[in-house]
Amino acid sequence: MSSAISPKKIAQSLQELWSPRVIGEVDDVFIKVAKLHGTLAWHSHDDEDELFLVLKGHLRIELEDSCIELDEGEMFIVPKGVRHNPVAEQECQVMLIERKSTRHTGEVTTEKTRSLEEQLRPV
Amino acid sequence: MSSAISPKKIAQSLQELWSPRVIGEVDDVFIKVAKLHGTLAWHSHDDEDELFLVLKGHLRIELEDSCIELDEGEMFIVPKGVRHNPVAEQECQVMLIERKSTRHTGEVTTEKTRSLEEQLRPV
Repeated sequence: MSSAISPKKIAQSLQELWSPRVIGEVDDVFIKVAKLHGTLAWHSHDDEDELFLVLKGHLRIELEDSCIELDEGEMFIVPKGVRHNPVAEQECQVMLIERKSTRHTGEVTTEKTRSLEEQLRPV
Repeated sequence: MSSAISPKKIAQSLQELWSPRVIGEVDDVFIKVAKLHGTLAWHSHDDEDELFLVLKGHLRIELEDSCIELDEGEMFIVPKGVRHNPVAEQECQVMLIERKSTRHTGEVTTEKTRSLEEQLRPV
């Protein structure tokens, strides 16, 4: 347990896009990092809020009635039940904070959907 | 709800040292920022893990058997029950992630201890 963790360095090292990896846990939430490019899928998480913090680059989070533009160092919390779609015009790296029960793409399944087991693989 | 949040800018704007402010919540955890300089107090949180992410500067987290040195962008999760003491030789800014039940200085109370109400004041 006893060493510093660099979310940015771990995110940078990821090979696969849209494949979050767990880098820590704080009680009932996971801290994850992911490398994104392109678009994920419209979805929601009925029972969980979801925090996006941009470590590098720029991320747009499309909501049904607006768009959140996140530059490096900025964050946004998608409230539970709110449909959203993350879009990265260029490759970006993010940190995610979400309850352990959160499913990657909520109620939908696409070829990008990753299981919790995949997210728990060592980085 | 619908705008980007910059933890770094909010932390930078804080006037008071060692006085965490809540900037968001993800279900049962608070996201906080704080400006630190000097030392807090040896304490532990029996039931809660606590994440420190350095937004600016350098933070040392003293543990009973080791020391964690955190540079900008690095994080460390102090597991529940582990006694620790944050030390900032120079002013630094941090993001904290911790369960809502977490008390600022755990089981001890000092002149630096802040109540949840104080941490929830608007920034």
